[in-house]
Order: sequence, then C-alpha cells, then structure tokens
Amino acid sequence: MTYSVAVAGASGYAGGEVLRLLADHPDFEVTTVTAHANAGQRLIDVHPHLRSLEHLELVDTTPENLGGHDVVFLGLPHGKSGELTEQLDSSTLVVDCGADHRLVDEADWADFYGGEFYGSWPYGLPELIRHDGSRQRDALVGVKRIAVPGCNVTAISLGLAPGLAAHVVEGDDIVAVLAVGPSGAGKALRTDLLASEIMGSASAYGVGGRHRHVPEIIQNLRGASGARISVSFTPVLVPMSRGILATSTARLAPGATASDVRSAWELAYADEPFVHLLPEGRFPRTGDVTGANVALVGLAVDEAAGRVVAVTALDNLVKGTAGAAIQSANIALGLGETTGLPVNGVAP
Amino acid sequence: MTYSVAVAGASGYAGGEVLRLLADHPDFEVTTVTAHANAGQRLIDVHPHLRSLEHLELVDTTPENLGGHDVVFLGLPHGKSGELTEQLDSSTLVVDCGADHRLVDEADWADFYGGEFYGSWPYGLPELIRHDGSRQRDALVGVKRIAVPGCNVTAISLGLAPGLAAHVVEGDDIVAVLAVGPSGAGKALRTDLLASEIMGSASAYGVGGRHRHVPEIIQNLRGASGARISVSFTPVLVPMSRGILATSTARLAPGATASDVRSAWELAYADEPFVHLLPEGRFPRTGDVTGANVALVGLAVDEAAGRVVAVTALDNLVKGTAGAAIQSANIALGLGETTGLPVNGVAP
Amino acid sequence: MTYSVAVAGASGYAGGEVLRLLADHPDFEVTTVTAHANAGQRLIDVHPHLRSLEHLELVDTTPENLGGHDVVFLGLPHGKSGELTEQLDSSTLVVDCGADHRLVDEADWADFYGGEFYGSWPYGLPELIRHDGSRQRDALVGVKRIAVPGCNVTAISLGLAPGLAAHVVEGDDIVAVLAVGPSGAGKALRTDLLASEIMGSASAYGVGGRHRHVPEIIQNLRGASGARISVSFTPVLVPMSRGILATSTARLAPGATASDVRSAWELAYADEPFVHLLPEGRFPRTGDVTGANVALVGLAVDEAAGRVVAVTALDNLVKGTAGAAIQSANIALGLGETTGLPVNGVAP
Amino acid sequence: MTYSVAVAGASGYAGGEVLRLLADHPDFEVTTVTAHANAGQRLIDVHPHLRSLEHLELVDTTPENLGGHDVVFLGLPHGKSGELTEQLDSSTLVVDCGADHRLVDEADWADFYGGEFYGSWPYGLPELIRHDGSRQRDALVGVKRIAVPGCNVTAISLGLAPGLAAHVVEGDDIVAVLAVGPSGAGKALRTDLLASEIMGSASAYGVGGRHRHVPEIIQNLRGASGARISVSFTPVLVPMSRGILATSTARLAPGATASDVRSAWELAYADEPFVHLLPEGRFPRTGDVTGANVALVGLAVDEAAGRVVAVTALDNLVKGTAGAAIQSANIALGLGETTGLPVNGVAP
Repeated sequence: MTYSVAVAGASGYAGGEVLRLLADHPDFEVTTVTAHANAGQRLIDVHPHLRSLEHLELVDTTPENLGGHDVVFLGLPHGKSGELTEQLDSSTLVVDCGADHRLVDEADWADFYGGEFYGSWPYGLPELIRHDGSRQRDALVGVKRIAVPGCNVTAISLGLAPGLAAHVVEGDDIVAVLAVGPSGAGKALRTDLLASEIMGSASAYGVGGRHRHVPEIIQNLRGASGARISVSFTPVLVPMSRGILATSTARLAPGATASDVRSAWELAYADEPFVHLLPEGRFPRTGDVTGANVALVGLAVDEAAGRVVAVTALDNLVKGTAGAAIQSANIALGLGETTGLPVNGVAP
Repeated sequence: MTYSVAVAGASGYAGGEVLRLLADHPDFEVTTVTAHANAGQRLIDVHPHLRSLEHLELVDTTPENLGGHDVVFLGLPHGKSGELTEQLDSSTLVVDCGADHRLVDEADWADFYGGEFYGSWPYGLPELIRHDGSRQRDALVGVKRIAVPGCNVTAISLGLAPGLAAHVVEGDDIVAVLAVGPSGAGKALRTDLLASEIMGSASAYGVGGRHRHVPEIIQNLRGASGARISVSFTPVLVPMSRGILATSTARLAPGATASDVRSAWELAYADEPFVHLLPEGRFPRTGDVTGANVALVGLAVDEAAGRVVAVTALDNLVKGTAGAAIQSANIALGLGETTGLPVNGVAP
Repeated sequence: MTYSVAVAGASGYAGGEVLRLLADHPDFEVTTVTAHANAGQRLIDVHPHLRSLEHLELVDTTPENLGGHDVVFLGLPHGKSGELTEQLDSSTLVVDCGADHRLVDEADWADFYGGEFYGSWPYGLPELIRHDGSRQRDALVGVKRIAVPGCNVTAISLGLAPGLAAHVVEGDDIVAVLAVGPSGAGKALRTDLLASEIMGSASAYGVGGRHRHVPEIIQNLRGASGARISVSFTPVLVPMSRGILATSTARLAPGATASDVRSAWELAYADEPFVHLLPEGRFPRTGDVTGANVALVGLAVDEAAGRVVAVTALDNLVKGTAGAAIQSANIALGLGETTGLPVNGVAP
Repeated sequence: MTYSVAVAGASGYAGGEVLRLLADHPDFEVTTVTAHANAGQRLIDVHPHLRSLEHLELVDTTPENLGGHDVVFLGLPHGKSGELTEQLDSSTLVVDCGADHRLVDEADWADFYGGEFYGSWPYGLPELIRHDGSRQRDALVGVKRIAVPGCNVTAISLGLAPGLAAHVVEGDDIVAVLAVGPSGAGKALRTDLLASEIMGSASAYGVGGRHRHVPEIIQNLRGASGARISVSFTPVLVPMSRGILATSTARLAPGATASDVRSAWELAYADEPFVHLLPEGRFPRTGDVTGANVALVGLAVDEAAGRVVAVTALDNLVKGTAGAAIQSANIALGLGETTGLPVNGVAP
C-alpha cells in the first residue's frame, strides 16, 4: 500500500529535506504540505530544488489540513508540536523533527526549553545501543509517535555509545566539539546567519553547557552506559551549508586495550546499514555523506592522553533529521528499514 | 635606523604573509626574497596581492643570498633551517617560522619529526605566561635566534596558560579541538587540499595524538602549570582559507570558582596589546581577526561538566605565524613590540 | 535485462559522478571500474561517498579490462579515448565524457586540442534543438558511440538554442559569461586549484576566445540557427565545488517582441523532463540543481540594450556530464530517457 | 592638522569598512559614529574586528550628532542622505557612500530609485577618464560634497573607459556580467542572503536591465566615449563575502588593432597608484585585492568574436566603496591622494 503523507513546516530546511527524501520513497505519497508565513505559495517557489513536487501548494498548518493522512511529519519550531498533535488522530503516525518530545525528564525540558511539556515519545535513533545490548529500533516497531533526535545529539551518541555500552570508555568526563553548518539553525533571519558573516569564519556558540542538546546527549549516553554521564559540549559554526563533524572523546577505561576499543565499535556497527566504522587510521569527511542517510565513524585511541577519540560525520539534515525521521517511520510501519533512503553522498 | 631584511621561502603562504606585514613596517626594508622552485620569478607573479613589493624578484635560497642582512625570516619546510642557519652570521637576527627549533627535548623531535636536531631557540610567543608569573617576552630581548610557534600551538597555549599558571584549572586531562583552514598546510599539491575536496566539507586529521604540534603544546602548558600535562588534540579542517578556532577545555581545579577563573584570564591579558579576553557570554569568530595580529579568547565555566572552556580565535598566518615572527623580532631588536602590526581585522 | 557496465577513469570527478548515478539506475550494473594511478585501490577509498559500491576495486584502464561489457563510460583526459575505443567491440555502447569525439570539424580539433583526430560521434545533448525543428535526441536512438558535451557548452547551448532556432535572437554577436566551480577542472594537482586559492576569490580564465569549448559552442548554436555564429565566451571560476551559472546574451532580432521571445523558449522546453524555463522575473540558482540532471533557464528581454539574456543553471557533473551521459545511453539503448536520473536537487 | 570625522550608518558593512580604513589614516580622527537600530551599543560589539576603535559608542544618526565635524562619511540606505545633508554646514566635507547624489539626470533617478531627488554631487571615481582626456580627480579638488560610485559601476567603468575614450572599442553594445559577493547587499535580513542559501550556489539577479546601477554605468561610459552607450548588465551572486569580478566586453572598433587596444589601457593606467593593467595573458582574482584599494584589469582581444574583454577585480567594500570615499576625500582636502590607503591585499 501507499501511505498518504502530510508535512508540516514544509517551507523550512528540515521540512524541505523530508520532502526531498519522501519524493523518492516508494511507499509514501505526499499529498499535503503546510506552512505558516508561506502558506498560499507553490512549494516549488519556496523550494526550487524540489522539481518533482511542483504540483504541491502550501496550505496553513492546522489540525484540519494535517488530519486524514496516514503519516504526518512535523518540522516546526520547538513548542509548536504538542498542542497540534493532540488534535491529530491517535492512529496517525506522527514523526516530530522538533525537540518537543525528545526529553524524558520534565525538569530537563523546563531547564533548557521551558513552556508546557507534552511528554516524551519513542526516540527515533534506531542504531542507538543500550547498556543491556538492545537497540533503540526495537522500541520503534508499531509506534504511532516518534521524536526525531537533535542532529548534534545523533552525531555524539553514535560516536560514543558503543564504547560506553561495552565499558571500554568512561562516561563521567566526555568532551565533544562539533563543526556544524548553519542549516541546522534553519531559515531564521538573524544577522549572524547572513552569508557575509559566516563565509571565511568559524565561531563557537552555546559554550559552557547551555546548548539545548546537552540533556538529550546525556540521556542517550546514560542509556548506553547505565551510569552517570558528564559532557562538555561545544558546537562550532563553520562555513558549509550542511554537515556535522563531531569530535567526541571519553577517557579510556582502566584495563581496556586499543583492540578492546576497536572491537566494541566494530561489533556495534557491523550489521548497521547506515552507520559505518572506518578502518584504522581513516577519518570521515562530512562531504562524503552530503545528502545520504549515513553516519561515518573514525576511531583512535590516544594512549598518551588516556582518551578515545571518535569522529563522526553526518549530514545534519539527513541522518541528523529527515533521514532519521523516515528510517524510524519505516520501522514503525513495518516497512524495510532502509526503504527509500540514500546511502551514497553527493561529492565533491 | 632601517633594518635590511631577507625572507627565505618567500613564495609560500607563511613567507607571503611575513612580506605583507613587513611591507607596512616602518623599521624594516625587504631587500631579498628567496625561493626554491619559484626562483627567477617576479614576486608579484607568485603573490599578486603584494603590489607594493612588485619590484622584488625571487632568488635561490642560499646562504649567500641570505647573508649580509640585519634580519632573516625563514618560511621553510621543517628540517631545512638548521644547516642553513649555521651558515648565517651570528649577529644576524634569524626568525624561523618553521618547526626546527621549537622543541627543547630532542626525544620529542625524534618522535614527531625525525632527522638531525639543531637545538631549540628562544620561543616567539611573547604573551605566554609561565608558572613563575613571568612572560615569554622577557626571554626574547636582545636574542639573535627566534623559533616562531606552531599556529595551533599558539591558539591552545594562549587559551589555557592563564588558568594553568593560576592553578584554577588542571593540566592532566586537557582536550582541545580546533577548526582550522587549509592555508596552514601551505601550498602542497595534495588531492585532499583541492578546493573541490575542501569546500562544503569538514574533516579531522592527525587524530589520536599523532599531530606534530602535540609535544610543543605540552611543552608550553607544562611551562605554564609547572606540572604534568596531558592533552588530547584534534585538528578539524574546515572550508575557510585562514583562521583557527580552538576549543580548549581543562578540568576546573577543586575549590576554584567561576570568578577565580575569569580573574585569572583577566589578569593575564589585561595589558596585552594583541590578546583580548571577551566579556562573559561572548565568544570569538575567526572572521574578526582575519589579517590582524590578534588572538581573541572567550571563556566559559561549565559547572555541570566540571570543565573550563576557552575558545581562541586567531589568524593562523598572522598571530599564528607571521605576526608572531615580527612581534618577536620587534622585541629582540628593542623596537616597540606593537610596531607595524595590525590590530583590526578585515571583516566581513 | 540488466546491462553490464564498465567505467574508465573511475577515480576522477566525472567518473565518480557516473558511478553515483549508475548506482541508482535499475537497468545498469557496474561490474568494472578502471583507473590509472589509483588502480589496485578499493573504489571506496578513492570515493568514500560511494558507499553502495564498496565492493568494487579499481583495475587498470586497458582494452582487456573494459572489453566484454554492454556499456562502457569513459571519463578520461582528452586524447585518451580514441585509440582505446578502437579496441572495443563495435557492439558495445561507448559513452565518452571527454572531448575527443565532440567536434565535427577536424580543423577545430587541430586548433583547440591538437594530436590525432578520431572523428566525431553522435552528440549527447538530447534537448538540443536544430534549425529544422528536430532535436538531437533523434540522432541518438540505437547508436553505439556517444560524445558527451562539454559542461559549459551545454549551459550556453540550452540557454540560447531555442531563440536562435526560432529566429527571435541573432547569432552573430553572442556574449556568454559563466560562473563555474572548480570540479570542472577535475583532480589536477595545480596550485590555482588549491582550496586556499579558490575560497573567497573569483577569477577568469581562458579569456579572449582561447577556451577549448568555443568551437563546440559555435557548432551547436550554428546547428540551431542555421547561420553564422560569433561568441565571446568567458568562464569565471568561483568558490563552489559544483555548478555552472551561464549568463548568455544575444541581440534581439529585428521585429521580435518580448512575447515572441518567451514563446520560443516555452515551446522548446514545454515537454522536456530535464530542462525547465522559469516564470517571468525568476532566475535560477545552481544550488537548486546540485546533484540533479536538470537545467533551469531564466529569461529576460532587455529592450534598452536590445539583448535577450538567458541565465542557465546546471550541475556541471550531472546535466553537464554524467547525467547527460546516462540520459543519452538510455536513449541509445531504448530505455526510458528519464530512467534512473534524479530531478530533485540537494539544497541547501 | 588632523580632521575630525563622523561616520553615519557605522553599523553597516560600508560604514564598518570606512572605519577600518580611517583607523589607519594619519590625518583623520573618528570622533563620532552613528547608527539607527544599533544606537547605544559599543562599536566593538557590532564590529568586533575594529579593535583599535573599541572606545567608540554608536549614537543616533541625527544632524546634531553629525554636526561640528570636518568630515562626515555617510553609509546610509538610498533616499536617506538628501534631507540629512541639507542640515549639515556647507563647510563640512560630506562623502556619501549611498546612491542619492550619483545620477546627474533626474529622470534616471525617478526611473530607477524614485522619491525626492536632491541633485548630483562631484563623483568620487578619480581615475575615471573622460573623452576630452581629463580625469575625474580634477573635479574633486576642493569640493565639499562627494558622491561615492556604486561598486559594480566602478568595476565596469574602470574596465572599459580607457578603450572608449581612445575610440578603440565601441560603446553601443556593451555586455557586462559580474560575479559579486553578498556584502554588497549589506546586512539586510533576507532569506536569500542567508549563508545556507548562498554557499555552494551562484545566482543572477536584476537581470534584463533593471538593476539600479545601469544608468550610472551609462553615465560614466558616455562621459568616456562622448557618444551613445548601450549596456547589458547582469550581476551574479557568488559564495564569497567580498569582491567583484567584472567581465566587460565591447565591440572592437573598425580598424583598431590588438596593439591599439592594449596601448589605450596602458596609457590610461600607467601612472595610477590604485588601478593596474595586468600583463598580456594574465587575468585578475578578487582574492588578490581583498582589503586593498586596488582595481586590477586584465585585457584580451577576441579577434574571432570582434570583441575586447576587460576583466576587472576589486574589493566591493574598498575600491568599490570605502576606499574610493577616502581617496576622494584626500583629493578634496588637498592631502596626498594615496594617504592611508592599503595597496596590498590579504591573501590567501
């Protein structure tokens, strides 16, 4: 069967990327696209790259317009999905690319986001390993609500979870620094996101533990390790539209050897279709996963520093958002997990 | 008086930047520029941006051509300056932008570079603070040989030395991740440095403690702290010609408060003309120091993670190389330390 | 049936892009990839973005290795395909992405390339309109040899041919200036293609009619107009990996109205799946066709200047090379022309 | 003496660049900086790259705040300077970087800008050659009002005026296509100027003769040729913060030889300190004039096409705006024309 799909927030970068992937998915048909300020426009005028969807027109983001579909993807600012979703039928699969339902702990929500808390949903990072050895994908089968992870969170979680679950690294002093492109900030009209400001420059933001992705990172890594997690997280904005390169480091566990470390990651990702450990001595480039639903992980043990360094590359809009959304929806609906998802990047 | 100057390796990026700064320096006159493959060409054909030096022609890099000047700046590949310098008069001020004379410990040289070791020279990072409270500039007065620091090393050293010297952070588990532009790699003809490969992509290299700057970082930070240093260092290549944004973190020392931390950095840089601590909550962009001999430091204390995060922005070719060379030469010759050095960046 | 395919020059950008597209084509199976210096390496090590082809290994570019396939795509430097192809079976479909067989006139070959001339092949620009109203696609049905056009040539030809064929513009004083990314120059190790040189800078090359694409542009436009063509062509290298934005202008024909002009282009592209005329007042961005086999054309009549301006955007590696190759192969083999070719770009 | 200076619109890109250059000018002292929305902020918080001016604070753009200075530079949106300037003392030198006083013909103003017309001022392009052989600099001596040219206009005018004045090219069918960086559009918060939209993409705008710089281009070139001018002008936005690369072509005049052509440009620029003709076969890069008050011109004669191609590179914010403003002010005040203006670019 073909599932009918609505995409809310279709004029943004996340919504646009969901549409790009859905356009090539054999089991989904996009019938409704909604927006706020852009309602009334043709989709092709907002996203001139989505040629195959030029028949679609943006309508208002209302429960009425979103109702009556098999699947609804939400690409809305945080705080906007809770109330809206309550008005959608419980039999509809709702996949939220925003932050509203990622956090389990209401106190974390209050600390980092604020406003009404609508509760957590099954978390859309299928490859996430847990300390009991299970994967997050098991928790997605048959569900009707999915919270898509934050893009930075995915990069760090995929980078370090295998070692934490295997107890070859310690979780109590993790440091992660990410090079990220500005599309992660969406189309917000801010001076600091203008091309003239970004090109030729790198800058850090959310420094010192105040970035909203911190509690979500901790939540995932605690699930992997089964123990307390501490993380120093710094995102660095760099001049490329897409991509995240996460350098995540954790202390080598006492007694763990370099071989133990590599084995932990190899075992974790040996059968994963979308997450690949690179051979020893090789490290990934974000340019190699542009447009692909793939995360690449490079791994090194720094014996002198007593740290393991995992470098993860992914496309923030694909494996970091839209691809994860569709991969999780595939699982929820019982489709093949890889259906309709690209594994080859567009390079150079 | 005006000092006559020769620049060896003038066709490279470091040499070109030394020339750009010297062109505006009131006390230096460049009379000789040397190169290897480009000898015989006009300088303006190799560096079309150096319009005011169009009268110069590149000659071979030989002791004869370099001899007879008051000052010689070397922008040569590592391993090339030792033998050459032995043939220059001891009364000539020689400023080496390469790595040959940075390391004090011959074992470090053997481990990370190899080849004959020609001994360390006074180290050209004037603002570097030592655990006895002195600054490195004191060691540069009147010297005839100067080793210019590695660009990444400068970024991390300026970022963390104040806290180590004041014992408000610990040195035994430092993590530093740097976003760096490709000009740091010079004009080497390598596929991975082609524009098509770099634009739109970020990638890590030298991961796991194998980068040649590691022993030099440790040497500086040990000098600041007076104790053992461990550092996990990862450079990330990003698509901007120039610039280093270093995110350097160290564990907060037991008992140290956020206020202690900020005071340590404030005190260290209050009177520095070229290193500035940004106000609380502000973090630097490399774009703001393009072309300037300035390092900007942003500082945050992440109480939850127990870490201090120092973000340093500098231009790898200026404060990271050519500006440091001239600043140090100014000191050595008894000129005003700031003479001829730009403090305003070219932005956007 | 599935056609077995060999790709020669598979380690370059053109070869890599042919492989990226073939990987998603339902009727082709790549069984052999060949290279020169990279022979012996795994394809994934040279093209880390081609995850689905990681089973392939590069072998030498020899007639033996290329023989025995249904289809051979060549991504070789000019001058390399003539002799090689003579040793391939005449029943094999050979698609040459290089320049060797594009020019009809041997004198043009001698003037702009030199070396032995191996004769012209059917020209792989299906949408090219001729002055008799026919399209180039008709000349591709059933052929066994295809010459893929030069990427700049395609951009200008698609931009102006409709107006020339309809005689609403004149061909005797065409001016075309193109913004192009460096991937068009391939992986050549040249200083001027280094990332540090390209980023933040625009530059012209091949100025004054000496670019090798000139005779091919004239050949196509003469075919469209049936009359003499003169063209001033200037490519400008700009800092983006992919893409061509061609601004092509021709004098408005006496008596032709703005409405005549728009009608000519509308008529030409109304039914084309891969070439689209944008609505009045809209102009294309190369970013909207990244990765897609699409050319977008924006059109304006400048009454005051007496010129028609056609702005064409395409991805030099897709519609400019690899996509054109596969589209033409589809026609030659009797497959659906659009089979396996993406129409949506990867943006932002 | 030192002239006291106020800069209005100091928070924008043009204003910021005027300040960057003034900071190094020996005869000017900036005492007042004004802004609209940013009034009340410290200048360093808006322009973190202007370290040497960190003592300045932005105040409101009012006649009171701007009054009482020897020189006032205006970096305001068009339509804002006319009324404001009427309230400034006639003995104050006012240099307007905006468009309000560039056009001589009120009808052109009405057609392309609209709103009240406040009349033309002496035009700040000193090197502009006129058909009587004089230069525009003669018209600037001692004046109290200066209209700084549009950046695109400067690039085309410097590119073609020598040939028009010498009658070696014809002016009635000029075509100019420019690659331009987004800083020319200022800090306007528009979706199409976001970094994610610009990076990796080229696009044309103002196509078909509707760009506001058209009448100003014609005005300048008519002054050079003494005859009717027709120009087809297309700006192309490319991913670099700064820079204009203008490809300007004009028909070769009957009887003019390639040698006549080169002589015309050589003669025109032989003694110019800021405009340089490159040797035959060389063409400029914008990266070589970043930050410098220099325009580089490369010249080719395309005999086959019957056209002369002049390629001009300049920094839109320096020679295209702020440098031209200060160069013209130097002349007006009787200072050395080159005082305080950089000739070396910041490259790579």
